[in-house]
Amino acid sequence: MRLTIAGDSHGKYMIAVLEGIPAGLKIDEEIIRRELFRRRNCYGRGKRMSMEEDAFEIVSGVWGGITTGAPVTILVPNKAGNPVKDVRSVPRPGHIDYAAFVKYKLPDLNVYVERSSARWTVALTAAGALLKSLLREFNIDVLGFVTRLGNVEAKNIPDNFEELRRKRDESAVFCPDPEATEGMISEIDRAKEEGNTLGGKVKVIARGVPAGIGSYSDLFKKLDSKIGSLFFAIPAVKGVVIGSEEMWYGFDYLDEFELEDGRIKRRTNNLGGIEGGITNGEDVWVNVFVKPIPTTGKPLNSVDLRTMEPAKTPYVRSDVTAVPPASVVCEAALAVVISDALLEHLGDGNIDDLKRRFGNENLPRWDDGFWKEYDR
Amino acid sequence: MRLTIAGDSHGKYMIAVLEGIPAGLKIDEEIIRRELFRRRNCYGRGKRMSMEEDAFEIVSGVWGGITTGAPVTILVPNKAGNPVKDVRSVPRPGHIDYAAFVKYKLPDLNVYVERSSARWTVALTAAGALLKSLLREFNIDVLGFVTRLGNVEAKNIPDNFEELRRKRDESAVFCPDPEATEGMISEIDRAKEEGNTLGGKVKVIARGVPAGIGSYSDLFKKLDSKIGSLFFAIPAVKGVVIGSEEMWYGFDYLDEFELEDGRIKRRTNNLGGIEGGITNGEDVWVNVFVKPIPTTGKPLNSVDLRTMEPAKTPYVRSDVTAVPPASVVCEAALAVVISDALLEHLGDGNIDDLKRRFGNENLPRWDDGFWKEYDR
Amino acid sequence: MRLTIAGDSHGKYMIAVLEGIPAGLKIDEEIIRRELFRRRNCYGRGKRMSMEEDAFEIVSGVWGGITTGAPVTILVPNKAGNPVKDVRSVPRPGHIDYAAFVKYKLPDLNVYVERSSARWTVALTAAGALLKSLLREFNIDVLGFVTRLGNVEAKNIPDNFEELRRKRDESAVFCPDPEATEGMISEIDRAKEEGNTLGGKVKVIARGVPAGIGSYSDLFKKLDSKIGSLFFAIPAVKGVVIGSEEMWYGFDYLDEFELEDGRIKRRTNNLGGIEGGITNGEDVWVNVFVKPIPTTGKPLNSVDLRTMEPAKTPYVRSDVTAVPPASVVCEAALAVVISDALLEHLGDGNIDDLKRRFGNENLPRWDDGFWKEYDR
Amino acid sequence: MRLTIAGDSHGKYMIAVLEGIPAGLKIDEEIIRRELFRRRNCYGRGKRMSMEEDAFEIVSGVWGGITTGAPVTILVPNKAGNPVKDVRSVPRPGHIDYAAFVKYKLPDLNVYVERSSARWTVALTAAGALLKSLLREFNIDVLGFVTRLGNVEAKNIPDNFEELRRKRDESAVFCPDPEATEGMISEIDRAKEEGNTLGGKVKVIARGVPAGIGSYSDLFKKLDSKIGSLFFAIPAVKGVVIGSEEMWYGFDYLDEFELEDGRIKRRTNNLGGIEGGITNGEDVWVNVFVKPIPTTGKPLNSVDLRTMEPAKTPYVRSDVTAVPPASVVCEAALAVVISDALLEHLGDGNIDDLKRRFGNENLPRWDDGFWKEYDR
Repeated sequence: MRLTIAGDSHGKYMIAVLEGIPAGLKIDEEIIRRELFRRRNCYGRGKRMSMEEDAFEIVSGVWGGITTGAPVTILVPNKAGNPVKDVRSVPRPGHIDYAAFVKYKLPDLNVYVERSSARWTVALTAAGALLKSLLREFNIDVLGFVTRLGNVEAKNIPDNFEELRRKRDESAVFCPDPEATEGMISEIDRAKEEGNTLGGKVKVIARGVPAGIGSYSDLFKKLDSKIGSLFFAIPAVKGVVIGSEEMWYGFDYLDEFELEDGRIKRRTNNLGGIEGGITNGEDVWVNVFVKPIPTTGKPLNSVDLRTMEPAKTPYVRSDVTAVPPASVVCEAALAVVISDALLEHLGDGNIDDLKRRFGNENLPRWDDGFWKEYDR
Repeated sequence: MRLTIAGDSHGKYMIAVLEGIPAGLKIDEEIIRRELFRRRNCYGRGKRMSMEEDAFEIVSGVWGGITTGAPVTILVPNKAGNPVKDVRSVPRPGHIDYAAFVKYKLPDLNVYVERSSARWTVALTAAGALLKSLLREFNIDVLGFVTRLGNVEAKNIPDNFEELRRKRDESAVFCPDPEATEGMISEIDRAKEEGNTLGGKVKVIARGVPAGIGSYSDLFKKLDSKIGSLFFAIPAVKGVVIGSEEMWYGFDYLDEFELEDGRIKRRTNNLGGIEGGITNGEDVWVNVFVKPIPTTGKPLNSVDLRTMEPAKTPYVRSDVTAVPPASVVCEAALAVVISDALLEHLGDGNIDDLKRRFGNENLPRWDDGFWKEYDR
Repeated sequence: MRLTIAGDSHGKYMIAVLEGIPAGLKIDEEIIRRELFRRRNCYGRGKRMSMEEDAFEIVSGVWGGITTGAPVTILVPNKAGNPVKDVRSVPRPGHIDYAAFVKYKLPDLNVYVERSSARWTVALTAAGALLKSLLREFNIDVLGFVTRLGNVEAKNIPDNFEELRRKRDESAVFCPDPEATEGMISEIDRAKEEGNTLGGKVKVIARGVPAGIGSYSDLFKKLDSKIGSLFFAIPAVKGVVIGSEEMWYGFDYLDEFELEDGRIKRRTNNLGGIEGGITNGEDVWVNVFVKPIPTTGKPLNSVDLRTMEPAKTPYVRSDVTAVPPASVVCEAALAVVISDALLEHLGDGNIDDLKRRFGNENLPRWDDGFWKEYDR
Repeated sequence: MRLTIAGDSHGKYMIAVLEGIPAGLKIDEEIIRRELFRRRNCYGRGKRMSMEEDAFEIVSGVWGGITTGAPVTILVPNKAGNPVKDVRSVPRPGHIDYAAFVKYKLPDLNVYVERSSARWTVALTAAGALLKSLLREFNIDVLGFVTRLGNVEAKNIPDNFEELRRKRDESAVFCPDPEATEGMISEIDRAKEEGNTLGGKVKVIARGVPAGIGSYSDLFKKLDSKIGSLFFAIPAVKGVVIGSEEMWYGFDYLDEFELEDGRIKRRTNNLGGIEGGITNGEDVWVNVFVKPIPTTGKPLNSVDLRTMEPAKTPYVRSDVTAVPPASVVCEAALAVVISDALLEHLGDGNIDDLKRRFGNENLPRWDDGFWKEYDR
């Protein structure tokens, strides 16, 4: 599977193309609508958001609601037209402005924001949401939520997946801990008042991923590598930890095996469901560090690149934090990565064939006869 | 540039192939020798290490010490022959054993360790060390060191690069803080006694990387994405944070601009030298979370996959920690990533041409005439 | 550079995404308009063509007519709406119908034509035409024309490029030999009457390509491999020969060197401008074998896949031949391949930098000082 | 699956790395030995050949004769040591000499031949031969032979595959037509006397390839595109035609369907077994144009790049023709392409799982229930 994302934040469309989707898959557009809505509607988002309805259109690869095996293209129209703006020459710390100017050398910083703003994550969100229709066929569920905002950390995170989802959905900041939610809302209010912006952390979990997904052949097909590759493409993401961040002592960290009704279980899941680049049947979970938005409400020190004189960053209306929407985007990203690795494992063709392949291949027993001709 | 790594830990060779290296580059084999030696010689490494001399041979792409533009192949012989071993059927928590058995279904866990052991990082180390001969031509320097081992954290890290390197090299665990080094050695001794293993953290810095390296075109050519992709392929790596982990408030985190002698400077470098996927001229720095080695000195709970009865993991002689060598490997990984992005920026051909291209393209001034035909 | 093409022939848009285009390039939309018109307007095209105006829109990566370095997306709307059609279960020989049904297993052959019809080549044509704005900056010109249709072969092909273009453009079938053009028109008329379809051959030339483009590092970066990879993705293409098809004797075939005013010249160009995967400074030229359209005007023998009874292929209004439009498509394909290889050579960033790099690197002299430190 | 090939013709080894091979596959080294022998031993090969024994070693990814899922590395030692040679500054027409000098700018043409000589095809031959152990599991057989040498064309080519193989193997030039073989041997003798070299044509057939292999999703996953990509990477290959070269009239060319015992058959196979980028169940067959060797026995006109004076190409002992060994190399290339596409279709893991997947998925019937929820 290959995902291509294009689009400028004030262009006509954001575009996602998914190649390698099996044929015969029924796409539930409601999921896409819901995830785009979630990405847009959370506490702390600014005015631009409400100008965009995040309608979307699937313009290829789907016929009567069913995939055809051809590339699937999703277009998300940008509602906010491109206002005539003055040339901007004062770069904002934390944004691509300066770095892109040095590389691309076009003398208007407005240009670079078109590609590098978080607007393109709407296309990633749509692509991930579309792939949930695929994951559902294999009983794989993906869920993302906020675990930290500014200095407020979530403490009580339900273990039960449905409760976790419900509590998250009840939170204006997608944090399943109601008490922390209140603290986070206060953080947002205070930051807004100060003109400050907030970073934080997000956790994403994939439940139901079978053991054996990923690879140790090509280094870049290791599931960890795929996670690193896509998550670090998300603008606000500056850090990714797979599984527990507390990894100081082997005895505390390594997930021992036990048997439960004759089946293998783990007591803990510090490793995040991946061992050696391949899933081990436990939840795949990822912690993501999300940086504060670079567009602050009070000016920061900068330099006017035109005059090479000190200058202050301009005041631009913006969100206070990208952490809650980042939880939606990261959920989508994990859906993309798991789908990609799952399809690499199962091959291509018709979804019913892939499901049959999947169904026929339960966990191996030691004496299954594999490698039968091998003589040591 | 493309890096391919192959080799089994008890096979004849570990193999690294680098495609896309410019012609005419003088390779300093001494660097490779030194880095392989560093990877092998640090406190806490077990006996296997001393059995390997990490000789290496460059068998293609270099003629008389100069690259030819053809793929460069490095072979690192494995000295430790493959001992006859019994079939192993008890998976070790934290290792690929169980996950790979489910995927590949060959009934001997010894098989999977061949590819998934950290032994292949010797090839990555060699490849990164070779690329230092490239980076040197552009005055780019890469340095990695240990910042945490078990519960001991480094506090005093010199800002001066040469002092940093010197202090790191004086430390048996590659930690530039002498006091922390002592603590870390104690941690290792204690862990060894207990049969425990240690995780920790590593920091890698690339100094001298020019602004403008990376891209915002293809998502996966963003420098962050490249870092995520390669670092997460390293067996022991479970987490990567680019720049500071303290990213909770915009005012504290965003690196403001200032002018110094008419040149743009930053007061801080929390962003780790990358904005929007492109370097901004500051040091690129990365924190890496390294998990404890899964082969503990005391048995862990497991299951015998042959009998499906509870079992204990076998005692295998092993290192206590992979953190110090991981600092060498991560240094190599950053050298690979920076080289790759630099070559994408500069194109291919002869190194002298690339250097001329590089030299001719200083930072743009606003009125440089780029985009001159554009009429707003 | 990476080209992604999506779109169903009756969907809303055909989509081309180009990643890795340098910033600051002025796009001449007139070229795109012209090439789309040419693809559509030639003798022998059927009715569907006139229903499509091949309007197009560049919806990303271009700001005020100038590229920004972000992915460039071109949308070409499909004018012909999707008529309600009966399920089709009789596969046409030569079309994807049967092969795709076996793979994707959706019981309506209409589905597969959506992706596999030649309609997607409109997106390739647009992408190639857009890249002509890039090639123009480097004085590279690409030209395609018909050399054979049915049994009629072109004999008199002008050597002068401008004359060649003019004569081609005067021909209703894009054949620069006026006499052959007449014969080809007769072939088309006769075939139409008989319900037959016509194959043929196309020649594409890239003039002005500097020596040194391509690579011998990665096998798949050899220019020949890139040509094979893209040309064979074009639906009607079944054969590709680089340079002369008459390659039986070394003495006749190999292009000897001579000096003209102190510069190296070749007497002949049988090798098609590529030696060892790298351009040699002569014209790059490619012969393409184009198969007859699988939708014939008289029924062919087939099988109804629903009943597994013998059946005849349905009558569907169609073109008689794809050879003239294929000459437009192949011209675009060569523009894509040359652009891709040129950008790999020159790197990325701003077009003016790339032009300076290009300008600074004339042909090497033997004593240029490259490899100066090498001591044999 | 990904194939990487490295190695210099006078370096220690030629290297092939295959990533993505399933685990549990028994490798028959005898096939590799046989194909390397065939590549080396045919009429018209020069002296260098006999100096090489083409021993080979599989140094990774295989354990006790069985693949492990890890990358498979094959090393083929180069027996001919690197003789001390004078600097060479006179480029040979048809070889990479001049083009590579312009690109890489190293002042010794001997350098470029290291990578660009046909010597690396020994690694491709070994890789393809190894993959025959995979194809055999799916009853797929690949066969290549010479159809033209100089002006002599094969006429009588047996349709029966075993007879075809036998006759080919009896021919000193791998041409299954005994009469043509004689003519070809005369061509070689005459060419040798004249110092001339010979081009020709090769045909490669894959029998037993199931319908449904390939894809119409990503353009570059079409089977035709994969064939073009790999075949045009082979040094001597200048042309590739899939199926019949006679493609002028639809009625003559398109392969009509018929029923035989209730199964779908074709009367002809002009399309070469691929429709729309996907196999249709017929033999996949490819014609390959092979150029004459650029090292002629009598000097050609050239230029001394050092002095920029006219010069003659040096006399170097060489083969008269690469066509017979090219038939071996192209057979290997088709084995690689078909394996790659087959594995993309079937996914990864253990070979026995892949065989079960394969076995469970016979040709679909129209009413198989795929796409069952679709409501037009």
